[in-house]
Amino acid sequence: MAYDSKCIFCKIVQKKVSASIVYEDDEVIAFLDIRPLSMGHTLVIPKQHYVDIFEIPADVQAKVYAVAQKTAFAVKKAAGADGVSVIQQNGKAAGQDIFHLHVHVVPRFNGVALPRFSDLELAERSVLNEMAKKVIAAF
Amino acid sequence: MAYDSKCIFCKIVQKKVSASIVYEDDEVIAFLDIRPLSMGHTLVIPKQHYVDIFEIPADVQAKVYAVAQKTAFAVKKAAGADGVSVIQQNGKAAGQDIFHLHVHVVPRFNGVALPRFSDLELAERSVLNEMAKKVIAAF
Repeated sequence: MAYDSKCIFCKIVQKKVSASIVYEDDEVIAFLDIRPLSMGHTLVIPKQHYVDIFEIPADVQAKVYAVAQKTAFAVKKAAGADGVSVIQQNGKAAGQDIFHLHVHVVPRFNGVALPRFSDLELAERSVLNEMAKKVIAAF
Repeated sequence: MAYDSKCIFCKIVQKKVSASIVYEDDEVIAFLDIRPLSMGHTLVIPKQHYVDIFEIPADVQAKVYAVAQKTAFAVKKAAGADGVSVIQQNGKAAGQDIFHLHVHVVPRFNGVALPRFSDLELAERSVLNEMAKKVIAAF
């Protein structure tokens, strides 16, 4: 597995940085976003460091989206959501902030618009861990 | 192939409604969004009618995202974009408007935020068709 020593997501994969992990297999890992757009907002990433959709091999992308689909079911149930947004940004122009490909799986609620990314605040780890338990139970 | 007689995307698949198609195979079709978030904004859909991520079989979703990846390369090149957003909405709560699963592949440009969906206007067919030619050439 090729890691980028400066990449925060590579550090999460290696368990050098803590995260509220909800799913893990040999090639894919999913964890709650520390600045959630809504409670249950999960990031699904390949363990291997690929910057974006232009770099990830098609077969690895397929595995990431297969997990994203399972995650959509889990977070919808765990959050009691009405819908789910699946968002993947490529390039600073698109608002990509961490340059390790990640798919956002975001619970959505009737009548509630997504906040602006600039308005997001860090969630408490204890709150994230409680939510992660619910998501894990719903997988 | 199971179609929904009231679904506009099923009508596009059946060529009963015109669209600026940029890619087509046995199971997946991609065409320019008639209300583009940016020029080159493409929708990638399964030909079979599935409402959303909760209904589409995993193997069909994989085929849709494989085409979405190819489309990301093509629209980035054709539009001369700096980045690409890949967005898939599930449920009215998430802003899904057409209830036939679709993946938005949206060219992004440095310093340009996405417009609000409510501000979008219909593009001229001739403009879309010219853009479609460029996207097809870039596939």
